[in-house]
Amino acid sequence: MIYMGCDYSEGAAPQIIEALIKTNMEQSEGYGMDEHCMHAAELIKETIGREDCDIHFMVGGTQTNITVIASALRPFEAVIAPETGHICRHETGGVEATGHKIFHMRTEDGKIHPEQIEEAVLFHSDEHFVKPKMVYISQPTELGTLYSLDELKAIRSMCLKYDLYLYIDGARLAVGLTNSATDFDIKDIPGLCDVFYLGGTKIGMLFGEAIVIVNDKLKPDFRFMIKHCGAMLAKGRLLGVQFEEMFKDKGRLYYELGAHANAMADKLRAGLADLGFEFAVDSPTNQIFIRVSDAQAEALKEYCVYEPDGTLDPGYQRIRFCTSWATPEEDVEDLLEVLESIKQKA
Amino acid sequence: MIYMGCDYSEGAAPQIIEALIKTNMEQSEGYGMDEHCMHAAELIKETIGREDCDIHFMVGGTQTNITVIASALRPFEAVIAPETGHICRHETGGVEATGHKIFHMRTEDGKIHPEQIEEAVLFHSDEHFVKPKMVYISQPTELGTLYSLDELKAIRSMCLKYDLYLYIDGARLAVGLTNSATDFDIKDIPGLCDVFYLGGTKIGMLFGEAIVIVNDKLKPDFRFMIKHCGAMLAKGRLLGVQFEEMFKDKGRLYYELGAHANAMADKLRAGLADLGFEFAVDSPTNQIFIRVSDAQAEALKEYCVYEPDGTLDPGYQRIRFCTSWATPEEDVEDLLEVLESIKQKA
Amino acid sequence: MIYMGCDYSEGAAPQIIEALIKTNMEQSEGYGMDEHCMHAAELIKETIGREDCDIHFMVGGTQTNITVIASALRPFEAVIAPETGHICRHETGGVEATGHKIFHMRTEDGKIHPEQIEEAVLFHSDEHFVKPKMVYISQPTELGTLYSLDELKAIRSMCLKYDLYLYIDGARLAVGLTNSATDFDIKDIPGLCDVFYLGGTKIGMLFGEAIVIVNDKLKPDFRFMIKHCGAMLAKGRLLGVQFEEMFKDKGRLYYELGAHANAMADKLRAGLADLGFEFAVDSPTNQIFIRVSDAQAEALKEYCVYEPDGTLDPGYQRIRFCTSWATPEEDVEDLLEVLESIKQKA
Amino acid sequence: MIYMGCDYSEGAAPQIIEALIKTNMEQSEGYGMDEHCMHAAELIKETIGREDCDIHFMVGGTQTNITVIASALRPFEAVIAPETGHICRHETGGVEATGHKIFHMRTEDGKIHPEQIEEAVLFHSDEHFVKPKMVYISQPTELGTLYSLDELKAIRSMCLKYDLYLYIDGARLAVGLTNSATDFDIKDIPGLCDVFYLGGTKIGMLFGEAIVIVNDKLKPDFRFMIKHCGAMLAKGRLLGVQFEEMFKDKGRLYYELGAHANAMADKLRAGLADLGFEFAVDSPTNQIFIRVSDAQAEALKEYCVYEPDGTLDPGYQRIRFCTSWATPEEDVEDLLEVLESIKQKA
Repeated sequence: MIYMGCDYSEGAAPQIIEALIKTNMEQSEGYGMDEHCMHAAELIKETIGREDCDIHFMVGGTQTNITVIASALRPFEAVIAPETGHICRHETGGVEATGHKIFHMRTEDGKIHPEQIEEAVLFHSDEHFVKPKMVYISQPTELGTLYSLDELKAIRSMCLKYDLYLYIDGARLAVGLTNSATDFDIKDIPGLCDVFYLGGTKIGMLFGEAIVIVNDKLKPDFRFMIKHCGAMLAKGRLLGVQFEEMFKDKGRLYYELGAHANAMADKLRAGLADLGFEFAVDSPTNQIFIRVSDAQAEALKEYCVYEPDGTLDPGYQRIRFCTSWATPEEDVEDLLEVLESIKQKA
Repeated sequence: MIYMGCDYSEGAAPQIIEALIKTNMEQSEGYGMDEHCMHAAELIKETIGREDCDIHFMVGGTQTNITVIASALRPFEAVIAPETGHICRHETGGVEATGHKIFHMRTEDGKIHPEQIEEAVLFHSDEHFVKPKMVYISQPTELGTLYSLDELKAIRSMCLKYDLYLYIDGARLAVGLTNSATDFDIKDIPGLCDVFYLGGTKIGMLFGEAIVIVNDKLKPDFRFMIKHCGAMLAKGRLLGVQFEEMFKDKGRLYYELGAHANAMADKLRAGLADLGFEFAVDSPTNQIFIRVSDAQAEALKEYCVYEPDGTLDPGYQRIRFCTSWATPEEDVEDLLEVLESIKQKA
Repeated sequence: MIYMGCDYSEGAAPQIIEALIKTNMEQSEGYGMDEHCMHAAELIKETIGREDCDIHFMVGGTQTNITVIASALRPFEAVIAPETGHICRHETGGVEATGHKIFHMRTEDGKIHPEQIEEAVLFHSDEHFVKPKMVYISQPTELGTLYSLDELKAIRSMCLKYDLYLYIDGARLAVGLTNSATDFDIKDIPGLCDVFYLGGTKIGMLFGEAIVIVNDKLKPDFRFMIKHCGAMLAKGRLLGVQFEEMFKDKGRLYYELGAHANAMADKLRAGLADLGFEFAVDSPTNQIFIRVSDAQAEALKEYCVYEPDGTLDPGYQRIRFCTSWATPEEDVEDLLEVLESIKQKA
Repeated sequence: MIYMGCDYSEGAAPQIIEALIKTNMEQSEGYGMDEHCMHAAELIKETIGREDCDIHFMVGGTQTNITVIASALRPFEAVIAPETGHICRHETGGVEATGHKIFHMRTEDGKIHPEQIEEAVLFHSDEHFVKPKMVYISQPTELGTLYSLDELKAIRSMCLKYDLYLYIDGARLAVGLTNSATDFDIKDIPGLCDVFYLGGTKIGMLFGEAIVIVNDKLKPDFRFMIKHCGAMLAKGRLLGVQFEEMFKDKGRLYYELGAHANAMADKLRAGLADLGFEFAVDSPTNQIFIRVSDAQAEALKEYCVYEPDGTLDPGYQRIRFCTSWATPEEDVEDLLEVLESIKQKA
């Protein structure tokens, strides 16, 4: 069976496992106060080219989003997000659980556009409405698309105009940064937003996300928030050890793993195009959405784990393939062969 | 430096690490829907001698407590707990974050007594008060003490009398079950409560807690609650793999690791008694509280990481030593030597 | 100045004031446990033709919505509502404050359609999404439109199909029931939903809304929820006294006041049509939305308080007039005169 | 039947009712943006001798407490309060519903002492605990006792030392201010705390509490919080009209009504002392707690509504009498006669 359903179906990259084995019997302070966490934070600051930020390590993306948002906002403040955003549909109302409304903006490509932000702000005219105070975006988006530097700058400007925090969910940021369509560098990101996170879970760690808080207003007492949200890992050094490995040598491993996911996606995308499959989203990254007939989808199940992503016109559906740091090149080749064989199905 | 500050300063037992290495590149469903989780759940059911319960795997204890409590209660319902309970003081208000009041009961030994439950229920006379609906206890308690079977039965009876759920926090349950002072078996626990959890983090796993839901009323849609609380691990199989290792062979490893913590504690306790130290709590388990002078506490810091636990009469304080699955016997011996050498300090 | 901005700009109908004066120095139990509340509940049960329901009195509509929804749902459960719903945009995130997501459905006429409910349910496929459990609608809607009996039955069927509660916000229900376009009776309502409320604030009471809980599952401990939400009025009998007056003689006053609002609206609507104004919504009730030029809107401000309701094409906007139980007929006439005089403005 | 159970069993003082009648058909802006509210705020600022504060009008005390606390605190911050505080036991967990823990301090007399505040702060040593950020007290307390000016200053100093907000619940402040045991003036209060409220419900208004925000940090966006908490009254001018009446002529009516409650309490207290009843609390205000035998309590029920307040030693209980702005002098006399007649009951 070929796994192309998601980018977290394996454990961790061998170097990560090695580091965990090597440090396993060390004794250290709990809750992220150990030297590995301190060191990993330094490595990240170096990589992103910014010293005056706070770094916190979390286990998973949903809890990261919940904690960042709940920490930044007063009770009546709301988040503006594209309706496809992870917080909108894949977190079982975790943000609302902390009392905050998410104002969904329509999107076809997973991105939010500056004028939508303005529209959302102006819609909320007085105290009978929630007060928009943060914009949430993902890079890459949940549809695999990418913001360009200019797009991010325009969003940032609009946020500054209306005094909104900009939060970038970087669950797959390594894939974004190593993608040939990206026209900026990791060092640009701190200047573009108030807070973001560097995802580890989807890039080859067992688990782990690194929050980078740039805006001073969002820094105080963040560790209280982490614990308050039930998100503080007892053996916090497990996060430090993994991120140390990812970000030593200026993020070499982080970039390598991201680049591999892109390379496998490029190969798969090219093959799909050759086979004449129709792309349902114009995505340059490791999430590839195609249109298949119900019969094709059914036939494919025998060979491959993919992610169904809704129905299109009658008889057709959208499915997602997702390559990752761990995808073997031969899996891509095998999948293309399978696809060729089922292509003629109605 | 001798580490006796807590039972989670190392990584995981070698067998656990081995199992993680072995399964690292397997590809599996995310979020706890994989075969390792299924298998681990079966092994736990076998060990506790109960098939008709639901098992869920969580990363940490605080998020476990939050999720269980928030799932069980309606908004105005409250938890009765001893004031030393983990949820009362070491979770940064995580339970209150979900809207529920915890009604603290005074305790000297970390335990709650049946008559206190009755007192708490009767105090809350009508709808102007919160409505007590759950009793939270830990076995062993946060002070290292243990409930006897009769005590648990009496608490259970009181809960049934007033239609209260009984929830047992088993963060260190392995230590409790393998302690010579315990007069019951793991198979007794499902019959004594509505829901409990088997702690892994403090017993030699990298992380992980296994919730066992016995009461049918608490079962529906629990996975929604886990995700809603930001507590669903993407690579859920990491929990399954670890718990499989712990509970195969009828929980052999789980018991072995618990027994080791107890053995080391027994040795340390005996040595402390021989040296004439005064025990601040009469605890039979791996958390040992003694009374030391400020000078002794200060001198000890040079050799040993322990946990300060408040001041007593002027010039004296309470400190905690905590042995674990990983404590080397020679660390206990070294610590006793150090203690002998500083004993005469005022 | 002519007030047509809302239906709560005056105090209360004279009969209501009279009843409050008459009972002012009576001494009674607090918190809604008095005889006036008991009696008012009986009168309402009689009027709606249903004995087996629970009645609770609240001060305002927003707190009513918050309390009903928070009481009915488990933490991860969500509400489906038309995007124009009061809970979606005019309650400052009060529902989200209790932890629940509202899933907004697009609407042009303020109504939700049965197929949208189905669509919303099917979209939420598993535990990574919130779980829809309630449908919220208003009768009349916030755009002044009305559901027909068949439409309500179809919505109800869809709710039953997917095990969803149906909650009807009746802030202006008196206007709906006395409207010539309505093809059902107050006695039909309990059979069509699980819980609804009879609004008083917008129908001539100083304040007050009466919740009617039909579904047994939603009844237990509701008074705990009211107090928990900070919504229990100390001198609760003020609500009882007002609702007694409204619902004695089979709801005579309630219907009269609703009918007056409709009569004034009909007159205004006819006049607007004669003058050639374009209706922005096809509403048969006391909320009338028209399209005016910016110049007209500006000129109108001098004579009349109306509610601006967003911009349309450049140079044009939507405004709302709202008649009420208290609208003097001559105000309608005066307004029509003013409108005639400003009609020619670009 | 003599009503001495609480101070909110009647409607409102005649002057209040008169003002409501007089303004009933005025047309005004909703939600507290009307001229009566503006004027009432000015009158209150004048009475308290402070211009630079924000005034907001609320319907009830519980919702006032919830809104003030939820607005002031970040999610992990907690309130320190005496265990008898209204927020601790008579609000059905309304504060916890907003996510905040209340740290209860033991008290015999309903008051909190400065050293308890320090103790509470020091107990919460790091991010594993909630972070105390506010002290909640009531003047008079829920046991009818009063803080002296020196006591308030000492509490205030401790709050400043640890950067805690001080919030004074003034549900019965009029009684406190007009009590002969009070050694300070209403003008002293703004300098002693960050936020307080002037209660109306228990002092002769139909309903209404006026929040006074002194600390600039607590001012921004408070109206969003009111609406978010479901606490914004549609016909807000009802609050303005009532408070105008209370605070015109420098608070003449407010003081008169408070003074009457005190006068009646003094008479009752003197009579109780003459009859030899034992006071269970040494309270100088309108809440009087005495110790009676079960037989006395039972006999008394036939003549008088009082509030039972828990059992004491076997056979004895504590009951509360509460005089109010509305208590007729002859009711006090009648009650004393009744008490004389039942005094000899075992």
